[in-house]
Amino acid sequence: MVAHQLAVKGAGDDGGVTVVDRLDHPIVLAPLSGGPSTPELAAAVATAGGFGFLAAGYLTVDAVRERMNLLRELSDRPFGINLFVPGGPADPAVYAPYVELLHAEARAAGLPVGEPRYDDDGWEAKLDLVTAEPPAIVSFTFGCPDSSVIQRVRQAGAEAWVTVTSPEEARHAARAGADGLVLQGGEAGGHRGSFDNRPELPTLGVLALLQLTADLGVPRMAAGGIATGAGVAAVLAAGATAAALGTAFLRCPEAGTSAPHRDALSSGRPTRLTQSFSGRLARGIVNEFMDRHDGHAVTAYPEIHYVTAPTRAWAREAGDPAWINLWAGQAYPLSRAEPAREVAERMIAELATARG
Amino acid sequence: MVAHQLAVKGAGDDGGVTVVDRLDHPIVLAPLSGGPSTPELAAAVATAGGFGFLAAGYLTVDAVRERMNLLRELSDRPFGINLFVPGGPADPAVYAPYVELLHAEARAAGLPVGEPRYDDDGWEAKLDLVTAEPPAIVSFTFGCPDSSVIQRVRQAGAEAWVTVTSPEEARHAARAGADGLVLQGGEAGGHRGSFDNRPELPTLGVLALLQLTADLGVPRMAAGGIATGAGVAAVLAAGATAAALGTAFLRCPEAGTSAPHRDALSSGRPTRLTQSFSGRLARGIVNEFMDRHDGHAVTAYPEIHYVTAPTRAWAREAGDPAWINLWAGQAYPLSRAEPAREVAERMIAELATARG
Repeated sequence: MVAHQLAVKGAGDDGGVTVVDRLDHPIVLAPLSGGPSTPELAAAVATAGGFGFLAAGYLTVDAVRERMNLLRELSDRPFGINLFVPGGPADPAVYAPYVELLHAEARAAGLPVGEPRYDDDGWEAKLDLVTAEPPAIVSFTFGCPDSSVIQRVRQAGAEAWVTVTSPEEARHAARAGADGLVLQGGEAGGHRGSFDNRPELPTLGVLALLQLTADLGVPRMAAGGIATGAGVAAVLAAGATAAALGTAFLRCPEAGTSAPHRDALSSGRPTRLTQSFSGRLARGIVNEFMDRHDGHAVTAYPEIHYVTAPTRAWAREAGDPAWINLWAGQAYPLSRAEPAREVAERMIAELATARG
Repeated sequence: MVAHQLAVKGAGDDGGVTVVDRLDHPIVLAPLSGGPSTPELAAAVATAGGFGFLAAGYLTVDAVRERMNLLRELSDRPFGINLFVPGGPADPAVYAPYVELLHAEARAAGLPVGEPRYDDDGWEAKLDLVTAEPPAIVSFTFGCPDSSVIQRVRQAGAEAWVTVTSPEEARHAARAGADGLVLQGGEAGGHRGSFDNRPELPTLGVLALLQLTADLGVPRMAAGGIATGAGVAAVLAAGATAAALGTAFLRCPEAGTSAPHRDALSSGRPTRLTQSFSGRLARGIVNEFMDRHDGHAVTAYPEIHYVTAPTRAWAREAGDPAWINLWAGQAYPLSRAEPAREVAERMIAELATARG
């Protein structure tokens, strides 16, 4: 139960020291919203000397609390919670034709399908939770919270980190008082954490992003296509405080990854960015659903997410990868079906070799 | 005149030592076809202890010979020549509508415009030249030459390097006997060096590419979005033998970069991949031409290159950036208008700092 106490300090200054600097190894488990995130996975990475995040996205606040409690039972190491920052609802005129198509297709196949709806992913309740029982880091995705929110998190004793995908977003988050930045390169699997969800925004590689934000003086974690200790060494050499890895842990037994998703992760098929599943760009292994819909899918998050969620849940159960969002980063062929501790320890050994 | 003699050795084995390993500094000037490449630029980088490439693409064989001779007068350091590997001609039915549109547009604006045509960029004559007067490295772009060509280059006393953009291309080139690979990440400015020019091929980041090719046992240079010594340190940590930088040198006085292109390089505008200028994907700073044509431009290289070449030449003269291919990598905002030697020396100092 001492985890959050480690984080009580004044970070966020130029070059400020964060809980990430005090890790045994600068390896961070990315949040992995949407199923793969589990307390067991976060605990295993923390036990190996890294840092684990729990995803709060898509869960009820009670489920998040339960997971935090379980993680605190499994490990006394510091950990982080990732929250989705709500955007606004999309215009129904924008998404209606795509929804109609998805409905028709699912019904023709005899599969469940949902209705478009907007919600804020329980923003206020989750903020209340993470400030009442603060983890070491609260990280934010899909936007930069107001300075007041960042201050509230810090006053509760946690660091506030913001996920960014461009130098402009990085500057915005630094000005808002973020203790640190998660730089997400275009290589990353899953959703782009950009502040707005226009698909035409530039997609910078993680190494370009690191160099273009070197002057900010804010601690940075690098994410996107990092799958080996050599990859970790690379982002550290480019100035990152730590590397955040998600896909590298998706095949671990501790992860909540579905069986067909695990299978796809050993397929070797290409990945690409798609907004077909959720109405927001995310990187996944190309499948039939993406091939059918990438040409006309629209930007409307989370409305489209709720339309496809029942179909995807059915397909995960049924073991049918053709209807599933098979999130994966560009380096996913290097992921292995090994216990998380082994993945982390191999990474740590490779990192030591790469650093000489 | 001793440059090429340094390269006579049996590289290409697992972990083989190349001329790149013997550099004072593992910093390579990328070829920069299409104007920016000059002997003066290559000489300046070589004099600073790096390695310079000359572009042969788009030039007559006589012009390439002249440039090689001039570079040999300016520097006795080893250097490289980059050749385009010819693909096949495109189907006129594929490009005719786009050509018609480009013709109509140029005529309406009162600008010169060209006709589509195919050529092999003087492949045989250029091969004869680089094997008769071999530089230290002959690198290839847009394809993997036959093993017989690679052997011919090696027997002439040069190393044969192949530009690759995916693990599959890397394996292909390694099997063909390449002495080394230039791994070009999607961050890179200018043309993608992929073996075929389908725009839907995956665009891997340089760091993902490095990790995904670590098991090949062939020396690798990393290219794409590297603009600082920290970026160089990163790719070295990830296993590269050297970093290849192009955009970082585009604003140097020694480069043949046009004035409007130089101006654009201090604009801060986003880059993206486009096939609008040449019929092959390349990364450039977004301008009006790309905005007008990216939605319907077709894959037909070099046919479309020859259609737009006169318009682009006019625009470079006239100083009108709206019609110019403003090639730039993702980290281009970090490029500086400084002599090449200063750029290289700054990079070397930053590299030393980043490596600790």
